[in-house]
Amino acid sequence: MTLISEHIETDTREKILVVAERLFRQIGYQKTTVADIAKELRMSPANVYRFFDSKKAIHEGVARTLMGEVEVEAQRIAQAAGPASVRLRQMIKTINRMNTERYVGDSKLHEMVEIAMQEDWGVCVAHMEMIARTIGQVIGQGAASGEFEVADLQLASLCACTAMMRFFHPQMIAQCATKPGPSIDQMIDFVIAGLSPRAKAN
Amino acid sequence: MTLISEHIETDTREKILVVAERLFRQIGYQKTTVADIAKELRMSPANVYRFFDSKKAIHEGVARTLMGEVEVEAQRIAQAAGPASVRLRQMIKTINRMNTERYVGDSKLHEMVEIAMQEDWGVCVAHMEMIARTIGQVIGQGAASGEFEVADLQLASLCACTAMMRFFHPQMIAQCATKPGPSIDQMIDFVIAGLSPRAKAN
Repeated sequence: MTLISEHIETDTREKILVVAERLFRQIGYQKTTVADIAKELRMSPANVYRFFDSKKAIHEGVARTLMGEVEVEAQRIAQAAGPASVRLRQMIKTINRMNTERYVGDSKLHEMVEIAMQEDWGVCVAHMEMIARTIGQVIGQGAASGEFEVADLQLASLCACTAMMRFFHPQMIAQCATKPGPSIDQMIDFVIAGLSPRAKAN
Repeated sequence: MTLISEHIETDTREKILVVAERLFRQIGYQKTTVADIAKELRMSPANVYRFFDSKKAIHEGVARTLMGEVEVEAQRIAQAAGPASVRLRQMIKTINRMNTERYVGDSKLHEMVEIAMQEDWGVCVAHMEMIARTIGQVIGQGAASGEFEVADLQLASLCACTAMMRFFHPQMIAQCATKPGPSIDQMIDFVIAGLSPRAKAN
């Protein structure tokens, strides 16, 4: 019995997040209320509050789902076969593409990002750390194969992520779209150069 | 007579900018009105409008002055003697320090940056281009001396600037202050590695 009721609970939790994400996309993050979400699910707001103790908790849950999908794609590339530099490029471009689709331009989800940044959500930091670790996995594979030369793997991953901020950070993607700067492929070339074996000092 | 009156005109323009900057720092960018600036200078708002055709033009003038000071410091370092990598580090840290002092934390000037970014001011783009060119000068000197190996100087400068976004961009400096990431020196090491001569391919 416990297992079945736990399953139903998880299911309701998921349903709330799916409906919340759809409403955020349709009418925007700020305008969506817990009552709207409850109404769509034909349940009472009180019942929604049994699963999420605040409106913010629902928002974080939706953000977590969206970020989790990017993490799954990045993980898939980290575990695939092929040269590390090819997969690093593919991973960086995938993160850029998914973040651009989700959060930039006309997307109403951009509102959610702005608030998440202002309020300094823990889910964002956890996501950035997960992305840095996944990028670190591929850099580590490249170091093992001799493609890359890395003294401190964790530091190299943080630097690679930081260098790509213009192409990862939703606010920077939006702000820099019309500004002069390198293309994403040119920037990846620069990062790969930074990870490549050095000439020995004369 | 023409020269003297031109001199007075320039002088008044400068005075307006100095007073405007002081008021922006004291009471904030949004709350300062053209009437406040005129009152401090014991002139009529109409007289201020003879020099700046809108409130925005005064704001841009103040931003231009603040950014110009950073450019002057960067230029000074570009023209100094010493190894290019040492001066590149000094220049990047100077830009970071000056932008942090001016625009981040409690500074009321941060408000001005937020608006400049939202409204997509041309002065910001011109400033970024000037900083990229100045960084390019030092990278070019390093390429000439053999410290750096650069195929496309303009591209290398844009990539170096883009890689340092976390430490240059006022909004990113503010947002990333409490986030995990490399130190500025570690990030500069990474950029210098990207500019350094490659090992020949086997």
